[in-house]
Amino acid sequence: MQDTLLTLDTPAAVIDLDRMQRNIARMQQRMDAQGVRLRPHVKTSKSVPVAAAQRAAGASGITVSTLKEAEQFFAAGTTDILYAVSMAPHRLPQALQLRRRGCDLKLIVDSVAAAQAIAAFGREQGEAFEVWIEIDTDGHRSGVGADDTPLLLAIGRTLHDGGMRLGGVLTHAGSSYELDTPEALQALAERERAGCVQAAEALRAAGLPCPVVSVGSTPTALAASRLDGVTEVRAGVYVFFDLVMRNIGVCAAEDVALSVLATVIGHQADKGWAIVDAGWMAMSRDRGTARQKQDFGYGQVCDLQGRVMPGFVLTGANQEHGILARADGAAEADIATRFPLGTRLRILPNHACATGAQFPAYQALAADGSVQTWERLHGW
Amino acid sequence: MQDTLLTLDTPAAVIDLDRMQRNIARMQQRMDAQGVRLRPHVKTSKSVPVAAAQRAAGASGITVSTLKEAEQFFAAGTTDILYAVSMAPHRLPQALQLRRRGCDLKLIVDSVAAAQAIAAFGREQGEAFEVWIEIDTDGHRSGVGADDTPLLLAIGRTLHDGGMRLGGVLTHAGSSYELDTPEALQALAERERAGCVQAAEALRAAGLPCPVVSVGSTPTALAASRLDGVTEVRAGVYVFFDLVMRNIGVCAAEDVALSVLATVIGHQADKGWAIVDAGWMAMSRDRGTARQKQDFGYGQVCDLQGRVMPGFVLTGANQEHGILARADGAAEADIATRFPLGTRLRILPNHACATGAQFPAYQALAADGSVQTWERLHGW
Repeated sequence: MQDTLLTLDTPAAVIDLDRMQRNIARMQQRMDAQGVRLRPHVKTSKSVPVAAAQRAAGASGITVSTLKEAEQFFAAGTTDILYAVSMAPHRLPQALQLRRRGCDLKLIVDSVAAAQAIAAFGREQGEAFEVWIEIDTDGHRSGVGADDTPLLLAIGRTLHDGGMRLGGVLTHAGSSYELDTPEALQALAERERAGCVQAAEALRAAGLPCPVVSVGSTPTALAASRLDGVTEVRAGVYVFFDLVMRNIGVCAAEDVALSVLATVIGHQADKGWAIVDAGWMAMSRDRGTARQKQDFGYGQVCDLQGRVMPGFVLTGANQEHGILARADGAAEADIATRFPLGTRLRILPNHACATGAQFPAYQALAADGSVQTWERLHGW
Repeated sequence: MQDTLLTLDTPAAVIDLDRMQRNIARMQQRMDAQGVRLRPHVKTSKSVPVAAAQRAAGASGITVSTLKEAEQFFAAGTTDILYAVSMAPHRLPQALQLRRRGCDLKLIVDSVAAAQAIAAFGREQGEAFEVWIEIDTDGHRSGVGADDTPLLLAIGRTLHDGGMRLGGVLTHAGSSYELDTPEALQALAERERAGCVQAAEALRAAGLPCPVVSVGSTPTALAASRLDGVTEVRAGVYVFFDLVMRNIGVCAAEDVALSVLATVIGHQADKGWAIVDAGWMAMSRDRGTARQKQDFGYGQVCDLQGRVMPGFVLTGANQEHGILARADGAAEADIATRFPLGTRLRILPNHACATGAQFPAYQALAADGSVQTWERLHGW
């Protein structure tokens, strides 16, 4: 028998396929209009059918956050894979095996030490690894400072002169998650673009190759007004969106394609609480909206059709218990009649990447109400 | 070849078996001395060999947070299983199947509606489910108020007169996680005990059976000075402990048996940052120590031998990147020489239940340095 939202066990991670397809189309059209490739980051979904939908819409290659993702997506037929975390030397044998099996795997570095390790291992193994250099355009994490030309060239020469393929530069303006106005996002997108292009030009001016200029984060990708000099954009969470993205201002709650199907299992009527079986194990411990303009607790409550129920959120969570209550702190008088025992609800997550990771599979919900199980990768 | 901490891929969830055995022995000895059964909550580890070590030390039965845990531990030979989340009616067929296969599964409720649903289904199926009533002794989540005798008796009669087995009462003083002095913990432990015993006595006074009086949380179990009237104690996180428990005051950082093995993958030397490959996907998004007396960020840094490196924590985390820096905000001048590329470290987690859940398996580290893979349950 075909499952529906009424027959699935709870909690379950539901993908609204119509919303997902709209989100995919929106980002792809934007990149197509700007004439750049879109290389989705599959760390959000870690699911082959989701990436297949992105590819079908026009995406080109993928970005991964672990070599396990690279293995899985390569096994499913994707060859153009960027591993966008600084390469740890102990992982080089695994990267070599992937390349030897036909995977066009690209590595990244942001230090001479890591570049040396790759070049030494590559020469020893007779493998010209393709390596990109990570550029830091907003100070939030890794990368070579966009204007630190001496370090940039030292890394570039270590790779190029060491026999590796210097494939390009990439940057990720992760601090876009801290913003919430179109003007600030557009300014950061331009800083991301300009810094990465500047680094590419510095490499080229020194006679080093730099075919790819790769930028991206969902907020900056949707805010960028120009992408001159950029060859590709990476973005991940846009495929589902989430409440953090809603607060940043790049989507509405009604665009969020991932929700957690939950069941009401009890009440504390005097406090105005309904207890649901989606605790932090289902929602994740991500409280990303706590420091944004609207705090959704552990998630925004929607009815079974996915319609937002304004003012109702998960105000607290234990491992397998979520506390559903009014966000304004008032005790809802008729909580037990409004949400009787057994009521099924859908909860929108703060952070789709974190919530998805709590589940071994998604339930992909079609417009006709049928659901299909889509496996999801777990672990490293 | 036998793996060691030097050959494992990173990130990995490492259990220090010596510490785990000491933690198990400490709790078991305490319960033995007080003459009560210990029913460990396996939601912390979700791992059969960990529960086996608890049983070997004297534990009696287990507590689970999902029916999937019940299925797994029953398949591994445990029959005495308490499912300690309010029973959702749609899960009754699965509970019935477990009982029919020989699992001595106990359910819990805190409402007449849930009790009615169980009794109706049980009568229809000819199954006398064993049901315990959840008592609320600290207002933090679910349960019948300890002095709400009318509701307690209404639930008790619905079950008993409906042909079900009224097995007892249980409570969980989860608000113990908010405390950090021995006096406050001892007072809460007494409130937990007294409230649960009071509810049991009210049931018995009304002629209803109540053989079991079950209390517990790791902090109150370790703080309780008397357990008169209690027949069993439940506790979960004590098996590993974590930084939240260290701040509550029931263990030292040196007792924490779970750590995340991580590799240094880069630096931002001017900021005093080392970047490690344990981000929030490995550590979880749990920031439980943020509101406690010492904030450990996303985790306390230890060397490969598990020795705490005072003052170094993960101050930030992206999905696969952790930022290792001084907790006091000062930029460590020699960060790249102190933690060179490829350095392996162990990071103690804020919350062991949440961090463990990020991994498909543990790496159980013996005193001789060998490690063994212990599977861990994921999902529902």
